[in-house]
Amino acid sequence: MIPGPTPVPEAALLALAKHPIGHRTGEFSNILAEVTENLKWLHQTQNDVLMLNVSGTGAVEAGIINFLSPGDRILVGSNGKFGERWVEVAQAYGLNVEAVTAEWGKPLDPSAFAAKLQADTEKQIKAVIITHSETSTGVINDLAAINHHVKEHGQALIIVDAVTSLGAFNLPIDTWGLDVVASGSQKGYMIPPGLGFVSVSAKAWEAYKTAKLPKYYLDLGKYRKSAAKNTTPFTPPVNLIVALHASLRIMKEEGLESIFARHERLKNATRAAIKALNLPLFAADEYGSPAITAVEPLGIEADKIRSAMKKRFDIALAGGQDHLKNKIFRIGHLGFVSDRDILSCIASLEAVLPEVGYDNFTPGAGVAAANQVLIK
Amino acid sequence: MIPGPTPVPEAALLALAKHPIGHRTGEFSNILAEVTENLKWLHQTQNDVLMLNVSGTGAVEAGIINFLSPGDRILVGSNGKFGERWVEVAQAYGLNVEAVTAEWGKPLDPSAFAAKLQADTEKQIKAVIITHSETSTGVINDLAAINHHVKEHGQALIIVDAVTSLGAFNLPIDTWGLDVVASGSQKGYMIPPGLGFVSVSAKAWEAYKTAKLPKYYLDLGKYRKSAAKNTTPFTPPVNLIVALHASLRIMKEEGLESIFARHERLKNATRAAIKALNLPLFAADEYGSPAITAVEPLGIEADKIRSAMKKRFDIALAGGQDHLKNKIFRIGHLGFVSDRDILSCIASLEAVLPEVGYDNFTPGAGVAAANQVLIK
Repeated sequence: MIPGPTPVPEAALLALAKHPIGHRTGEFSNILAEVTENLKWLHQTQNDVLMLNVSGTGAVEAGIINFLSPGDRILVGSNGKFGERWVEVAQAYGLNVEAVTAEWGKPLDPSAFAAKLQADTEKQIKAVIITHSETSTGVINDLAAINHHVKEHGQALIIVDAVTSLGAFNLPIDTWGLDVVASGSQKGYMIPPGLGFVSVSAKAWEAYKTAKLPKYYLDLGKYRKSAAKNTTPFTPPVNLIVALHASLRIMKEEGLESIFARHERLKNATRAAIKALNLPLFAADEYGSPAITAVEPLGIEADKIRSAMKKRFDIALAGGQDHLKNKIFRIGHLGFVSDRDILSCIASLEAVLPEVGYDNFTPGAGVAAANQVLIK
Repeated sequence: MIPGPTPVPEAALLALAKHPIGHRTGEFSNILAEVTENLKWLHQTQNDVLMLNVSGTGAVEAGIINFLSPGDRILVGSNGKFGERWVEVAQAYGLNVEAVTAEWGKPLDPSAFAAKLQADTEKQIKAVIITHSETSTGVINDLAAINHHVKEHGQALIIVDAVTSLGAFNLPIDTWGLDVVASGSQKGYMIPPGLGFVSVSAKAWEAYKTAKLPKYYLDLGKYRKSAAKNTTPFTPPVNLIVALHASLRIMKEEGLESIFARHERLKNATRAAIKALNLPLFAADEYGSPAITAVEPLGIEADKIRSAMKKRFDIALAGGQDHLKNKIFRIGHLGFVSDRDILSCIASLEAVLPEVGYDNFTPGAGVAAANQVLIK
């Protein structure tokens, strides 16, 4: 129950164990063609959706450096560990980066972006980078509202870290006109870590033509060129792609609306349960992520709860990062997760909480509250 | 029988199919610790051996960009597709790159490096990049001799693309004093593609401190810092690392000397067989790669042989790259490959050659020649 690596369906696990096939064969090209088609379906886009052999961070970095030049002015939303990371990436590449911050656990304020974008009458801002679902805090940022201001600006690209939102939350890339959207395989895609995805709009490809930041392995132009021939510029992680082939078929069978509704339901059940246990949620209801729920068990060491959950029930919960270490724990409900998983998690949590000194709840209240959401 | 992805032992395939475990757990840290220890054994080094979620190209790129600054003068050996690629990488990053070339199919000339290094009395050359086993042509370059000249220069780093030599050929990193050695998982490591490895010497880490090329995902300092705590800076490809854990144990059991001897034997058997079939070897005996043997079936389309092998015997051979397309075919004998694999490959080749119009050999001669090498 962590926000990645997430659980993997059996069909995808078994696909992983197949002997790797040659990546320059017709057999593999056929798999790539179907995978690419299904990725476009999942991403709700006709844009290129490129696959790289990198983690989510590598995918977002590629999504940034392919479209910008040294000294370019950019805005980066930062209200958690990942927002902070994109600021660091931008600094590492010598971009003129301005962080638009919010407290960890709070969402980014769209009007803060509006103010800066509207003031930029000379159109110096080249890109706005937003983390959609901030995994470190369980906050979902209001991407639609921020994107609206970017579109009013007219020049800046919108670059989205959708690592824990893609495949969990409705993210209509073409409808919203999102230029660059990056994500990672061990999240909503229901396969292990090792693949990053970047979708690229026509407007972003225009920017690519004049972008001067150095790149080679992360050069998306190379991936695009190869993808057009159903191949890859460098040896791809064949087994992961074969697993993705299997997992995307499962996702198609479930359907986008069902996938999003399931994540919404699991989120609501988790949040209802935590409330019924009288534990504080780290992010408010209005901006709770469909991928992950952070809990701040004031007065109790979060890591004690995590280790008791692991020890007694073999359930892994994520901890807090940086200054939130031991202050929060995070329940992932992303990817191949079912109603039953939420119930076992909450039931187990009810069992361990008294062991670590917390009993300010009616036994069974968490499960009952979750069930009430799940039966709807 | 291609030079990567190479065959994978069953224990590693089954490890791949295990549910991914959390990468921030004690269980995974323990696996990382053993893997790191065994990687140092395989690499014959006490240097850091870092693991990245990238292909071999990503690993070599990391091995270049972490130690250099824009405008730095470097020499790059180029006698095949991969040597050419490192020239392109260096150019993409604005390095002052000088290619030291040899014809495809011929080895690099150590004296050409000696001349340039000796003339550089002002010690402007910051690095020499050498592809050890040039996969595109089946040539092994004389790294020891070139490295000797680099050591005489005293300042330049030696950066080695060992993608198809590491784990196949004796490459004593510490004895030779190799600064940076990069490789990839789908080769000698006997697991599928998806992991790159870079070993880094103390001298290279000194250069890292002042190196100014931009990097984040490929920043080896981040990997080093995390490795010291048995963790990774970014989500690692957990399943591949668990598979590597299994394959390294198998390699340790076989022992380094046996592994190298096996590759030498398979190379010799393959070459003897090809000669007995009166087909021209693309690289001469003195510099034939222990990983791959290229054959130039003059007058016959190489791809016809490849497709007949695939169709009749389900054996994949690699083709030629760039201007060698359809001119050569390449037999991989790298990683988890046995005497039997060589025999089936040669026996199958004997079956298909007449079908594609070549019968200038005594039936059975190839297998007999291979067997004579293998029984030694």
